[in-house]
Amino acid sequence: MDTLTRLETTIANRRDADPDTSYVAQLSHRGVPVMARKLGEEAVEACVAALSGSREELVGEAADVLFHLMVLLSAKDVSLAEVLAELDRREGTSGIDEKNSRSA
Amino acid sequence: MDTLTRLETTIANRRDADPDTSYVAQLSHRGVPVMARKLGEEAVEACVAALSGSREELVGEAADVLFHLMVLLSAKDVSLAEVLAELDRREGTSGIDEKNSRSA
Amino acid sequence: MDTLTRLETTIANRRDADPDTSYVAQLSHRGVPVMARKLGEEAVEACVAALSGSREELVGEAADVLFHLMVLLSAKDVSLAEVLAELDRREGTSGIDEKNSRSA
Amino acid sequence: MDTLTRLETTIANRRDADPDTSYVAQLSHRGVPVMARKLGEEAVEACVAALSGSREELVGEAADVLFHLMVLLSAKDVSLAEVLAELDRREGTSGIDEKNSRSA
Repeated sequence: MDTLTRLETTIANRRDADPDTSYVAQLSHRGVPVMARKLGEEAVEACVAALSGSREELVGEAADVLFHLMVLLSAKDVSLAEVLAELDRREGTSGIDEKNSRSA
Repeated sequence: MDTLTRLETTIANRRDADPDTSYVAQLSHRGVPVMARKLGEEAVEACVAALSGSREELVGEAADVLFHLMVLLSAKDVSLAEVLAELDRREGTSGIDEKNSRSA
Repeated sequence: MDTLTRLETTIANRRDADPDTSYVAQLSHRGVPVMARKLGEEAVEACVAALSGSREELVGEAADVLFHLMVLLSAKDVSLAEVLAELDRREGTSGIDEKNSRSA
Repeated sequence: MDTLTRLETTIANRRDADPDTSYVAQLSHRGVPVMARKLGEEAVEACVAALSGSREELVGEAADVLFHLMVLLSAKDVSLAEVLAELDRREGTSGIDEKNSRSA
């Protein structure tokens, strides 16, 4: 099983665990606004790491973005499969046309 | 081949394409600061969608976050495999201990 | 009257104007989620401008952050005076002690 | 003297203070990437507070945005006066036309 699918299962399993022993349970306990905030903050950190950090920092921040995105999706009952299906759907059209149609 | 791996290849192939026909080439032409900005902006949009948008909007914004993260990683020559390896490495430890060690 | 106080009045006056002739009315019509998103996006742009843009770009992005922060505060019926009073209150204590007490 | 002008002076005075006793000196010591990151993160927090927090939280986060914007501007030797002059300049034109001209 690949990493993101396994992570999705792990997150689902930990959501109702003891917040003292699981970071996922802690986020789950604090609620969607905290998870949404974490995603935004980690993306800002990845953005800064790409512009002025080391390669190692960018890898770590990108992992943080993926992790917190998965936690937020899980809390909103959106599966990774749905998001990947959306990426597949877009890939079927020319990238730029798709982007243009979305900005319209 | 799974979606993200295929997307990584597509992005690598389109980087040097004609900016008039490819959104990836357009971003590549504009440079890392624009890609980093896009990642940050899409994460803010995903954050807002999670708090006040529809499920469909969240799916779309999450796809945007993944797409722009992949574009940024590609420009910085960081592979998806490296980021997934970092997630795997963390999974080996208790999530909360790992987070605590990172915040230290 | 100073710039921010005048801007606050202008925003309050334009909120219910015709969205076709006023950007403030347009944002007001679209609602708080769009205003909140704009603030987050402009801050990401200021962040990127500080790291890799010109001085002129940073001035422009900082103005965008202030403008969209004022629009959001207005929509939530929070006055600039309240925010400045909070800054004054913090100034009374040592900056670092205050920050520490907030992170606790 | 008004709050933001006084804050600007305080920040300038504290920049070279002992990082153990001043939060501004601590940020100054850590550098522009950390200041830029802080601005982005605080804006995300203000964004989330506007959508799902209390009025008091929004006031606090808005103060954080202003504070970290001022710290970043100071580090880049951009004065508050320059940013306010840019806001004044825009005010002279219709808000929406100005925004349109900027997006072009």
